Amino acid sequence: MNRLSVKHLLGIKDLTREDIELLFQTASSFKEVINRPIKKVPSLRDITIANVFFENSTRTRLSFELAEKRLSADVINFSSSNSSVKKGETLVDTVQNILAMKVDMIVMRHGSPGAPHFLARSLANTKTGKHAVVVNAGDGTHEHPTQALLDTFSIHEKLGTLEGKKVAIIGDILHSRVALSNIFALQKLGADVMVCGPNTLLPKYISDLGVKVELDVDKALEWCDVANVLRIQLERQQIKYFPSLREYSLYFGIDRKRLARLNKEIVLMHPGPINRGVELASDAADADNAIILDQVENGVAVRMAVLYLLASKKPD
Amino acid sequence: MNRLSVKHLLGIKDLTREDIELLFQTASSFKEVINRPIKKVPSLRDITIANVFFENSTRTRLSFELAEKRLSADVINFSSSNSSVKKGETLVDTVQNILAMKVDMIVMRHGSPGAPHFLARSLANTKTGKHAVVVNAGDGTHEHPTQALLDTFSIHEKLGTLEGKKVAIIGDILHSRVALSNIFALQKLGADVMVCGPNTLLPKYISDLGVKVELDVDKALEWCDVANVLRIQLERQQIKYFPSLREYSLYFGIDRKRLARLNKEIVLMHPGPINRGVELASDAADADNAIILDQVENGVAVRMAVLYLLASKKPD
Amino acid sequence: MNRLSVKHLLGIKDLTREDIELLFQTASSFKEVINRPIKKVPSLRDITIANVFFENSTRTRLSFELAEKRLSADVINFSSSNSSVKKGETLVDTVQNILAMKVDMIVMRHGSPGAPHFLARSLANTKTGKHAVVVNAGDGTHEHPTQALLDTFSIHEKLGTLEGKKVAIIGDILHSRVALSNIFALQKLGADVMVCGPNTLLPKYISDLGVKVELDVDKALEWCDVANVLRIQLERQQIKYFPSLREYSLYFGIDRKRLARLNKEIVLMHPGPINRGVELASDAADADNAIILDQVENGVAVRMAVLYLLASKKPD
Repeated sequence: MNRLSVKHLLGIKDLTREDIELLFQTASSFKEVINRPIKKVPSLRDITIANVFFENSTRTRLSFELAEKRLSADVINFSSSNSSVKKGETLVDTVQNILAMKVDMIVMRHGSPGAPHFLARSLANTKTGKHAVVVNAGDGTHEHPTQALLDTFSIHEKLGTLEGKKVAIIGDILHSRVALSNIFALQKLGADVMVCGPNTLLPKYISDLGVKVELDVDKALEWCDVANVLRIQLERQQIKYFPSLREYSLYFGIDRKRLARLNKEIVLMHPGPINRGVELASDAADADNAIILDQVENGVAVRMAVLYLLASKKPD
Repeated sequence: MNRLSVKHLLGIKDLTREDIELLFQTASSFKEVINRPIKKVPSLRDITIANVFFENSTRTRLSFELAEKRLSADVINFSSSNSSVKKGETLVDTVQNILAMKVDMIVMRHGSPGAPHFLARSLANTKTGKHAVVVNAGDGTHEHPTQALLDTFSIHEKLGTLEGKKVAIIGDILHSRVALSNIFALQKLGADVMVCGPNTLLPKYISDLGVKVELDVDKALEWCDVANVLRIQLERQQIKYFPSLREYSLYFGIDRKRLARLNKEIVLMHPGPINRGVELASDAADADNAIILDQVENGVAVRMAVLYLLASKKPD
Repeated sequence: MNRLSVKHLLGIKDLTREDIELLFQTASSFKEVINRPIKKVPSLRDITIANVFFENSTRTRLSFELAEKRLSADVINFSSSNSSVKKGETLVDTVQNILAMKVDMIVMRHGSPGAPHFLARSLANTKTGKHAVVVNAGDGTHEHPTQALLDTFSIHEKLGTLEGKKVAIIGDILHSRVALSNIFALQKLGADVMVCGPNTLLPKYISDLGVKVELDVDKALEWCDVANVLRIQLERQQIKYFPSLREYSLYFGIDRKRLARLNKEIVLMHPGPINRGVELASDAADADNAIILDQVENGVAVRMAVLYLLASKKPD
């Protein structure tokens, strides 16, 4: 089987383990491509992709844009800051307009959880939209599926398998789309998952997700093979009793001293951008067992795989 | 004859009927191209086009950008929000600088009526600018020629001809560059034109344009074969006695109920973005006789035709 | 020898005279290329270049972007206004992330003097960054090497040589990165350099640079073969006793009357954007001996030369 079971990439929740393994296999080939002197393949030469970003995210957009260009797709960027969205147009109208210009795929970042799912459902009933492919590049605090794919791909690359590996996700779980998508992906691949953070940054539904919960970061580090350290997203915090940055750094910040106390080496990950000195000290971020820049490199390969596999699906 | 009579596309006013017919014929071929699996032609491979937008207009810019890329042109985007314009540079200096970098065509959106005409005149006297081609992508409340071409092209496609057809332009005529350009294009092609809207949104010079004027939207709908419903442009209104959105929607908003009262089917158009529930209800916007997304698709084909025909003109 | 002595272009200070002559020779060939009907060469077809602009500079970015496209490079634009920089990421982390996506060259504009030098040093010690090439597109009030190269290239083109030519740089020397880079380039090429401006706009260290200093613009014009007239950069001024624009224009503004008093013709230059009527009157800016638009054209050719020569350097 070399087809995904889904038409769109809306979330990890909808993927099967076989889907993820096919994506990893395809991403591995593309990783070879982007490390050759000639970094391009003609695979999507006749495909037009619109990156539709209703929220700023330079890092994710750049990664998608490079993935698209490496695949020789035609690329159009649309950002809401200077757009018709401000003029009162609905999401579906905006996207249908882009599709009417003969765009084949929509990569969308949106501030509202579920926006890409709503979009995919709405497009299915329209002449213009029914063949279009939607890729979720992050929807509010809900999912960020390509981030989870690149994270698990990076662990797979480093440790050979996810099966039975212990992965701790540490930090602001509540406001993080990265956390939720990672939990789904890790579990589908057979990893054991723990989340760790201050009580105020853990969502109430966390116990329903089948993950271990730990409030003490030292115990989490002791337990895990891999620590995925999330960013403290200052711009998202609306909670009064949240620890201050100084408190957070003191009780949850990971530095070489904390790591040295363990009698083993663990893999360190971070989705970026790093707040150096807050969730991760520089001596930890730049250590040999940190694979943070591998994650970034793998991000391009994984996104190439997503776009390639979805583009080659025949319309329903 | 397969040449336009003009060197620039500044407004519909300057075009002959033969020009418009040549543009339609060329746009038809390009519409076939963009509906093929391979959507590109190499026609403008060695042409560099700068999209110079002094006002935001994502929709128009995207359509031009896709048209340019389908023609294999090299594309440069310049927007005034982060530019030397803020540093006190004149319009002609800004454009001459872009042209000195060996740009062949300027697609310009500007807030001031007449700006592209002034630019074209000024460039004619300079070494750098005399071979450059200027395409007006909207100048204030004056003209928006490619919108009028795509609108009339869409009617032509739907009804086979414009000759003798009755077209009502409904809404905010006063602040609309779309209205003026459409009136010129429709009249040149032999259509009968009516404008309809509240008194406060009709310009004083309207009676000089040879169009019918109607204040009652039901009578306008009764009369016409095609209704081109304009956007209520909240961002442009400076008039005190303008009806409120609620009043506008009540007296001029078009919905299925209003359409059902007619004993015929009329073609519904809208230049977008739609304010659903204001000038057009969803049950009307999404009806079978609405060709709103065809307009968007035709926009790319028509802009390809404009760029192609102007680029292949020999310099004077 | 057809190699530059440097790995990065950080400033003119680091270049030898041979480097500059090689750049001029290469730029001459590229100027022929961009004046052909087919303006592109495949030289950098497999190179990816990121334009990383932490300060707005449409003019410089457009010129680099066109240079990159003429060389067939893949181009990615990153601007700080909507970026992770706002989220507290360090400069080195931001750039390492971009490089991890397999970008080969970084063209950077930054507000802080020395930022590209710091970046190049930091990258040298990293796995991701050690092969990357950094091009300084302006660092605060420090250097703007490609501007100096295009300025001196334009003089060389006009006068055949720089050797022994008298060049006066007139205006706001204190806040100008153009001035400093020009002084270095002119001196390396054997020109005689004078700076001229109001006392408050001359830096204290100016006497250490081996240039003549003149407070009277008429005497400067009398002396020179070439006058490079700088922009009064309103957005940079923090000095209380600076002359007002009116005073500046009266005492230092150059117009045809002032030029007519000389019993010779001098070459007039300006890096743009021009404040017409302040530092340069329109009758001077548009005169035959003004080569302002040649500078812009040469800018693309010179930047092509810089990128081409640095890209073809083997990694250390």
